[in-house]
Amino acid sequence: MARDSQATKARILAAAFDEFAEYGIAGARVDRIADAAEANKRMIYVYYGNKEQLFDQVIQQALEQGAESVPFDAEDLPGYAGAIFDHLTADPRLMRLVMWKRLERPEPTSLEAASYERKTAALAAAQRDGRVDPTHGPADLLMLVLALAQAWFTTAGGAPADSADSTGGSAWSEHLREGHRAAVVDAVARLVAVRHRPEPAAPASHAEVH
Amino acid sequence: MARDSQATKARILAAAFDEFAEYGIAGARVDRIADAAEANKRMIYVYYGNKEQLFDQVIQQALEQGAESVPFDAEDLPGYAGAIFDHLTADPRLMRLVMWKRLERPEPTSLEAASYERKTAALAAAQRDGRVDPTHGPADLLMLVLALAQAWFTTAGGAPADSADSTGGSAWSEHLREGHRAAVVDAVARLVAVRHRPEPAAPASHAEVH
Repeated sequence: MARDSQATKARILAAAFDEFAEYGIAGARVDRIADAAEANKRMIYVYYGNKEQLFDQVIQQALEQGAESVPFDAEDLPGYAGAIFDHLTADPRLMRLVMWKRLERPEPTSLEAASYERKTAALAAAQRDGRVDPTHGPADLLMLVLALAQAWFTTAGGAPADSADSTGGSAWSEHLREGHRAAVVDAVARLVAVRHRPEPAAPASHAEVH
Repeated sequence: MARDSQATKARILAAAFDEFAEYGIAGARVDRIADAAEANKRMIYVYYGNKEQLFDQVIQQALEQGAESVPFDAEDLPGYAGAIFDHLTADPRLMRLVMWKRLERPEPTSLEAASYERKTAALAAAQRDGRVDPTHGPADLLMLVLALAQAWFTTAGGAPADSADSTGGSAWSEHLREGHRAAVVDAVARLVAVRHRPEPAAPASHAEVH
């Protein structure tokens, strides 16, 4: 009995993931989720509350899985960006889900807020150690690294209709995918590369940067 | 009479812009647009067709205004990115509108497809002339430049709730805004900077660094 309800809850979450990735919160239909999950619509409300709360559960699960699959590494930001690229390529629904969240539930979850604090603190430390260029603050760097890693999934709306590129990762040929990935990783490497400083002449103003 | 209908159509488009930026297509209500525009709901259908077609008109107008305000310059991509940043900062509804489009009407419009062709062709020419680094193709470069320019507007979902940064440009202090803009412009400058090629005398290991 308990096992049955666990299985039902998992089917509901999986069906909700599909539905929300396709239609967002406003466009999603709990009826369709119930049908796809072979579950009773009433039980969805019992298990998960309203549609927004069900969405929050789906997002929470996706964020947890993302954090597990793609650990943050302030010492290897190009590798981190490449891993995000791979993670998003593996499941084109993920980026759609996150974009719906930004539009329909923009408030950061507690998981997102904690993750942001942890990452910017690690970036600040890497900047102090001279491993990451200190010209811009950790918040800017993090945002730009994430934007580069997600570029092909958030920004490709301008690609031509006859190109597989406009539809996201899964439709890419291996060759295209590798090219896009290399460009992302290289862009992040350039972004964080420590600029050569004028060595002996560095005056006291240098200290402010750190 | 003709002047009246022009004024009504303009009010409908302005109200539709607000409604779609806030709620997207699925969430938008033609009733609310009619109320806000002080127009007859039936006339919205007469002038603009269904809700999707009204959205397409709003997007078309926004894209035309964007192309006018932010001319593409393959020879000055950092400046182009800065101008996009300014354009998006001036009206936080714009990026939301574009994100809804990517999710709900992903097919590029003919204007988008033409603009993409023109920009990648100009980038390819700038690469041939040695003004833009040729390591990656024009499609990758364009996507990465756009992602950097839009980073704070598409990616800021991870910023902490108590920071004005998570809500978009209009809430930023002048100081924050200038910092974000400088980071974007610098990131694009690094991305397109032509790498030093191995000159005859340069040792191989050194060349990799540049």
